Amino acid sequence: MLTLQQTAQELLSFEDVLILCHRNPDGDTLGSGYALCRAYLEHGVRARVFCSDEVPEKFHYLSDCIPQTEFTPRHILSVDVADPGLLGEKALNLVASLHPVELSIDHHPTHRQFADEIYVEANSASCCEIIRVLLEEMGWEVTPSIASCLYTGIATDTGCFKFSNTSPRTHRIAAEMIEKGADYIPINKVMFDTLTFPELALERLALEKMWMSEDGSIAVMTITTDMLHKTSVSESELDRITSFTRKIKGVEIGITIKQRGPEDFKVSVRTGESRSAADICAVFGGGGHARAAGCQFNEADPVHIREQLLQAVRDTDPEVCHG
Amino acid sequence: MLTLQQTAQELLSFEDVLILCHRNPDGDTLGSGYALCRAYLEHGVRARVFCSDEVPEKFHYLSDCIPQTEFTPRHILSVDVADPGLLGEKALNLVASLHPVELSIDHHPTHRQFADEIYVEANSASCCEIIRVLLEEMGWEVTPSIASCLYTGIATDTGCFKFSNTSPRTHRIAAEMIEKGADYIPINKVMFDTLTFPELALERLALEKMWMSEDGSIAVMTITTDMLHKTSVSESELDRITSFTRKIKGVEIGITIKQRGPEDFKVSVRTGESRSAADICAVFGGGGHARAAGCQFNEADPVHIREQLLQAVRDTDPEVCHG
Repeated sequence: MLTLQQTAQELLSFEDVLILCHRNPDGDTLGSGYALCRAYLEHGVRARVFCSDEVPEKFHYLSDCIPQTEFTPRHILSVDVADPGLLGEKALNLVASLHPVELSIDHHPTHRQFADEIYVEANSASCCEIIRVLLEEMGWEVTPSIASCLYTGIATDTGCFKFSNTSPRTHRIAAEMIEKGADYIPINKVMFDTLTFPELALERLALEKMWMSEDGSIAVMTITTDMLHKTSVSESELDRITSFTRKIKGVEIGITIKQRGPEDFKVSVRTGESRSAADICAVFGGGGHARAAGCQFNEADPVHIREQLLQAVRDTDPEVCHG
Repeated sequence: MLTLQQTAQELLSFEDVLILCHRNPDGDTLGSGYALCRAYLEHGVRARVFCSDEVPEKFHYLSDCIPQTEFTPRHILSVDVADPGLLGEKALNLVASLHPVELSIDHHPTHRQFADEIYVEANSASCCEIIRVLLEEMGWEVTPSIASCLYTGIATDTGCFKFSNTSPRTHRIAAEMIEKGADYIPINKVMFDTLTFPELALERLALEKMWMSEDGSIAVMTITTDMLHKTSVSESELDRITSFTRKIKGVEIGITIKQRGPEDFKVSVRTGESRSAADICAVFGGGGHARAAGCQFNEADPVHIREQLLQAVRDTDPEVCHG
């Protein structure tokens, strides 16, 4: 792995740069990509960002006013991409037609090296935090637009400074980004305080059908493709709703059953201290961590899936829970 | 108004201190009160916190392990109290039986002086931010328990760093509080990621009955006392639900009609840039700001109230909106 200084030197040596984001893009990969892209353009270096999937509308401000220039990339780097598979098909094809990814900057502890060189800070709450530190090392200024890009990734990857990955450095960089002109008020509004009408309609449906155990310790939420069609909600808008069960006070086991096809259900299990999510999911060939795990069912009836899961909860002795 | 230095000197001179919080207490008034109380106790000064209303269970950790000592207060101060009426009846009676409030520390721009001396920083996002600065000026250390108290007020009054009152200083003090040992992960979980089952049940009911204009620009949510009884939700748990309408994408006018008695409804109106909430509420003798205002109705039928409000929306010409 490169050091911070080496990474900064490598970034300074690049020209005609292609920056790859991960598929199903979020605020951190896009914020990192466009912050770097804008910094290159500020220094007269041609650069562009590429993502296999379409960028959701709420992130369009990140690329505002960036001129589209055509050039054949001489250097390719990736940001916030933990695994080559996460580049997505289009980016993989593009890379195959050019040359390998030269440098990968990432913050995932599970990073699987696919680039020639990597710079990974596994303790960083976001990739944008790392980009901030790199720009400083490069001696490159943070303009207001760059500050907005970096703030976006820092805020979204920490649930607006709510999650446990938030560190003192996260807050200090956020303070600096606000001072540098990040448009943090509308960004927070769009990222954390905006509900679409379809989301609300789905929430209503999902709440109506939520199953709770009598003692309130188990909550099961089911989202069928039928419900998604009825409410015109897309997969990418599901985050808020699927995190519901584990927010309910008293719930020790929160289960979300999400349909992906006629006989294809993805299950995610979140547990408190007393039970192992991994143990419950292992019964169905799934896995994960003690507090968060997942498994899959290839059958058609979500009620039957729920019953099997509840049986597994009963069968999984809390006494032998592996925390 | 006192200067920061004078306020610190005054705080240092106090003994047998009674600290008053505002009624219907929140994280900022309680965090400020218990942070100061703990700081006094650390320095061998007797101190206690008083609030007219019961402290909600989720804030009980703020006073954990504080020994209850009996003493006749010699000095009385208030924290985060913008107006004497907000002290509540019990605190007002207590003050009347002792002597006037000597010092009031606050961050509300609308502060109405009732104490002998005041220290008001109207630009501060929270009162806890001011307490942090005062403790520094006093040369008093921030222990982990004090850090947790201060973090609580800083986070809750900014919606976890989401609202427009968040400043670079807010983030820098949050960083410092985390370093000093604030238990920020469970605090964030309880304050921002916990829903009670009654809240969910009420949400379901309220969403079912929410009224939307055909073009999606007006949303009206009605919460009746009947709905509160059915779901066992208390007034103090209503914040999340009443903020719903203005979060919906495309909604320019969000109205919440909240019943307080058989013929007593409180209405809050939030608007986007195009309309004045104050103008709409003025029709019914209410008032407020351009973007947020309120009014009252003394009648029994919420549907009739909604119709009058919608008529006022139609009558209030956007062209003459006073922003």
